[in-house]
Amino acid sequence: MEPQSGMKSIVTIGGGTGQFTLLTGLKRYPVRLTAVVSMADDGGSTGVLRDELGVLPPGDVRQCLVAVSEAELIVRELFNYRFEAGGLKGHNFGNIFLSALEKITGNFDEAVRVAGRVLATRGAVIPVTGQDARLVSGRGDACIRGQYAIETAELPKDPELHLEPDVYANPAAVEAIETADCIVIGPGNYFCSILPNLLVKGVPEAIRRSNASVVYNCNLMTKKGHTDGFAVDDFVDGIERHIGEGRVDFVICNGHTPEQELLDRYAAEGEFPVPAVAAGSKGGRTYLSADLISRNIPLQKAGDPIKRTLIRHDSDLLASLIVQNCLGDL
Amino acid sequence: MEPQSGMKSIVTIGGGTGQFTLLTGLKRYPVRLTAVVSMADDGGSTGVLRDELGVLPPGDVRQCLVAVSEAELIVRELFNYRFEAGGLKGHNFGNIFLSALEKITGNFDEAVRVAGRVLATRGAVIPVTGQDARLVSGRGDACIRGQYAIETAELPKDPELHLEPDVYANPAAVEAIETADCIVIGPGNYFCSILPNLLVKGVPEAIRRSNASVVYNCNLMTKKGHTDGFAVDDFVDGIERHIGEGRVDFVICNGHTPEQELLDRYAAEGEFPVPAVAAGSKGGRTYLSADLISRNIPLQKAGDPIKRTLIRHDSDLLASLIVQNCLGDL
Repeated sequence: MEPQSGMKSIVTIGGGTGQFTLLTGLKRYPVRLTAVVSMADDGGSTGVLRDELGVLPPGDVRQCLVAVSEAELIVRELFNYRFEAGGLKGHNFGNIFLSALEKITGNFDEAVRVAGRVLATRGAVIPVTGQDARLVSGRGDACIRGQYAIETAELPKDPELHLEPDVYANPAAVEAIETADCIVIGPGNYFCSILPNLLVKGVPEAIRRSNASVVYNCNLMTKKGHTDGFAVDDFVDGIERHIGEGRVDFVICNGHTPEQELLDRYAAEGEFPVPAVAAGSKGGRTYLSADLISRNIPLQKAGDPIKRTLIRHDSDLLASLIVQNCLGDL
Repeated sequence: MEPQSGMKSIVTIGGGTGQFTLLTGLKRYPVRLTAVVSMADDGGSTGVLRDELGVLPPGDVRQCLVAVSEAELIVRELFNYRFEAGGLKGHNFGNIFLSALEKITGNFDEAVRVAGRVLATRGAVIPVTGQDARLVSGRGDACIRGQYAIETAELPKDPELHLEPDVYANPAAVEAIETADCIVIGPGNYFCSILPNLLVKGVPEAIRRSNASVVYNCNLMTKKGHTDGFAVDDFVDGIERHIGEGRVDFVICNGHTPEQELLDRYAAEGEFPVPAVAAGSKGGRTYLSADLISRNIPLQKAGDPIKRTLIRHDSDLLASLIVQNCLGDL
């Protein structure tokens, strides 16, 4: 479906599997879709390509491209394929694709545009920045450097995250945000995939300037060492510390308690459900509460872009809640 | 351009850069084009992928796909891109693409078809066989095993080449050959890219059965240790020992002596021009003699599929000679 003038415009901000889930749902609606994607990843195949080839991190962008692709199934599977043997072992094909294109064009944005054409994407995928930076937690000797290191670390209660060096937003991301009807932040790894977007100079400013409604999709579960004990408002407050108090209009949160057996498995890993909140408006925020948990958990397959957590968002429910409540008439 | 019914059908048989050159020229004509491609390669990026991933050799097929691609330039460049650093160093992107698809589909033919769609190919590219085999020269202790080893070896005068194990032709290749109006063999590395196609069971038989005219594009230069002292008829006779005496209808050969400076450079490597023959018919063969040497030799670029030999065929001249002389009315 080609975007048509007059269509409402949704900009998603995030990265990783959360944004894949969200976009998979949203692409079914007649909206103008733009994914603004974190560029902080430095682990796995992405990390190796960054280090060895000096390219920008392709992993999050690749997941978004696949999510909004309307190419035949086999091509989408190809982009998520991960080699299992030999010198290519661990490398993801889509990451290799983007890295080769960046080497040829000398320009990651151009690489993403070409990949978008090959994948027949419905909507634009825009790296939040075209500049190379690393996510850092803390300052001085005690700092933790790199998204992958941070992801696996025990963070202080209110970590001081920043990007090194300072980087500036992709002008196309700024424009999309400023002219959006709706900006959707999350779901995703809070400190590693969501907040890094808001650390890019120009992004919070664009969100403040934009007339769009802002939706925050709250995580279903806490993450050990990162968001232990967080309530819904702790997540939202953290976002608003970047984009301005009162800027979040809608908070989508889970109102259903997962089965005890699943909870026990998560509890063994130190992860717990974010407590449910009642639907309704409070302090300028409208809380949309629903059973958001996917009942359709495919088996983990090799090369699958989604780490098949057992408790995760249902793409369709998430998209339908956003479109019905946060966007006005289509 | 989509093939239309009533179009004449040309089947090319070969591999490597020679077939790339030929197809690049032929794709400009309103003909139904099918490239039957050698599967003997086991060197370089292709050899590593064969060994490490257990896939069929992608290199020759990839060159043909790019030659007949009508995709945007950047996508064609991408398929020929070769990584220059890190763990991917030396790997060709298109080879990685085909290998990943073969791992996903479990089927090299299917991988080639998907790649053909992504590359918007004008014409079909068909691996000569879907079975894994190695080119071997000689028998017993003195044999040389593998195309790459053979390519760099000093071969006996009339090498006994065979494939191990015996492999059978791709049914699609057989059908294309049987129903072709014109079969074009070569140019290319005689013992390593051209003849291996004729060692696949079912290919010579199909050529014998076909009503197509058969064209042989003779090499411009001899290859040291392989075709030393060969005259045009030595090349043609070698082909006919496989496909039947008298089966070659047209021989396209070079009638122009390259500049002395170029000849000196080749002579230093032990390579010499194949002596010119007069145009005309003799013994059932029609010799088409022309100045076939390309004056348009681009500089060698990283990732370029063509090893930029200085004396090589001109794509357009080759294609135009074939279409005007060997195909009847279009």
